[in-house]
Amino acid sequence: MTDNPFAAGAAYVDGRYMPVGQASIPLTDWGYRRSDAIYDVVSVWDGQFFRLDDHIARFRASMRKLHFAPSESDEEIKAIVNRCVALSGLRNAYVAMDCLRGRPAPDKPYHPAYARNYVAAFAIPFVWVMNPEVQARGGHLIIAETLRIPRSSVDPTAKNFHWADLTRGQFEALERGADFALLLDSDGNLTEGAGFNVFVATDGLLATPDSGVLEGVTRQSVLDICEELGIPCQVRKISAAETREADEIFLTTTAGGVMPASRIDGRIMNNDRPGPLSTRIKERFWAKRAEGWHATPVDYTAA
Amino acid sequence: MTDNPFAAGAAYVDGRYMPVGQASIPLTDWGYRRSDAIYDVVSVWDGQFFRLDDHIARFRASMRKLHFAPSESDEEIKAIVNRCVALSGLRNAYVAMDCLRGRPAPDKPYHPAYARNYVAAFAIPFVWVMNPEVQARGGHLIIAETLRIPRSSVDPTAKNFHWADLTRGQFEALERGADFALLLDSDGNLTEGAGFNVFVATDGLLATPDSGVLEGVTRQSVLDICEELGIPCQVRKISAAETREADEIFLTTTAGGVMPASRIDGRIMNNDRPGPLSTRIKERFWAKRAEGWHATPVDYTAA
Repeated sequence: MTDNPFAAGAAYVDGRYMPVGQASIPLTDWGYRRSDAIYDVVSVWDGQFFRLDDHIARFRASMRKLHFAPSESDEEIKAIVNRCVALSGLRNAYVAMDCLRGRPAPDKPYHPAYARNYVAAFAIPFVWVMNPEVQARGGHLIIAETLRIPRSSVDPTAKNFHWADLTRGQFEALERGADFALLLDSDGNLTEGAGFNVFVATDGLLATPDSGVLEGVTRQSVLDICEELGIPCQVRKISAAETREADEIFLTTTAGGVMPASRIDGRIMNNDRPGPLSTRIKERFWAKRAEGWHATPVDYTAA
Repeated sequence: MTDNPFAAGAAYVDGRYMPVGQASIPLTDWGYRRSDAIYDVVSVWDGQFFRLDDHIARFRASMRKLHFAPSESDEEIKAIVNRCVALSGLRNAYVAMDCLRGRPAPDKPYHPAYARNYVAAFAIPFVWVMNPEVQARGGHLIIAETLRIPRSSVDPTAKNFHWADLTRGQFEALERGADFALLLDSDGNLTEGAGFNVFVATDGLLATPDSGVLEGVTRQSVLDICEELGIPCQVRKISAAETREADEIFLTTTAGGVMPASRIDGRIMNNDRPGPLSTRIKERFWAKRAEGWHATPVDYTAA
């Protein structure tokens, strides 16, 4: 029980703070109507941001790649996401930051270069892309027929909302009785899925795709953990066949951490449970988080 | 001068009408956050909708392709867009209708299949993608380096907001001193641009791309006019080379009609003015509109 109007989440839109349920964007904004927006998501666990500076740096890099220049500085964006969490009082939170193109400027050419860009952000209770019960049994994956949007059209390293292919993949997964779809590129190599990177293990050797994907912060964290634990992990092309025949597969995302799979295209891996390498990395990831790895404490006095 | 609060435009969002300036969607809606939405745009000119039933049919077809099922029927959507125009009192209007995925449903799997879809719509003063002054001198076009998102990833016939490639193309156009970018597919064939289809004329023969594009209503109107006027027009693949060497090029869109070009990649066509075939079709298009071709009068008493 709480009297805090921000208990369900707190948001910031273009200079103002509000309960997340009241946060909205104009129907006529190009951020929506042309999906002309970029975003990032950072997690808060046990009152601490994880790799906040890495997320802020990627957010700024995404903005630069797509010609976004909002008035807020990096330090101001850090203060905004901190204040959203502080207002909500949440100890475990999913914290999004967006930059939107804005609306066509009157009396200027009808071109996105002339719109006023602005920032939105919100903190809500932690989101599990794969909920803990599914993580315990291992996710059921398919390789979708839908292909990932190629880099020649949309740069996947500038985190964006062009998810129609990923959404189509998730409908394919649902139709085939699975939890998540993995998407290939037009050369038949593995890319990513709806909000996550993918790791594949064969004969004790890990690999994750080198291109056509978001350079995920949790993906980087797994690469760091592999180095620490002496587990070989390659960043390279991975064929569909290698994926289908893998010993283990796990997914990584800010909204869920390290998420093991137990089935791929109907084939059972590891007696239908998360594999030993996936489990070891997942446990090490959460242990390091608990130890304060790359942590920035939320300043709850900033509410 | 007017006291009508809807004079700048009227909107409908999920059951409620409001001035367009107040129309908004939730920051947390998948319609925005995953660009999980489809839309259509119909024009009103001189108090009459143009090909309203064709737009409603395409809107419904787009919804079906991407698993959208809002509560509104086609007849209800027609009444909604009519009422938006009637409330605004506009005689010439740009009228959009959207269907959004909605928000993650609490206590249900985190999958778009479980979200409640809803409709939004608005009428605002007519939008000229290419303003009349530019139409008079002819648009300056480039062929962008950015490629159109392929059909294997996103179906271009289900009208959607995946515009990052088109937007990137428009930034390329700006950098090169041009008005509009034309995008190719990965085979090097012409597709479309930021909200328009493309027609190319060579030796009196017209052509427009057969695939990888929205099946535009204005595009169809031009095909109809060509048949009426006995102008040969093919729907087929068009190479980048054919486009660069064309005698004439024009663009078609609901938000502007038939829009002639006068330059392509810096090359001047027709003494830097709209060509004769483009001009003839453009004039016939507006003449037929004035004659009530495919017109549905707005019921302004429905305000």
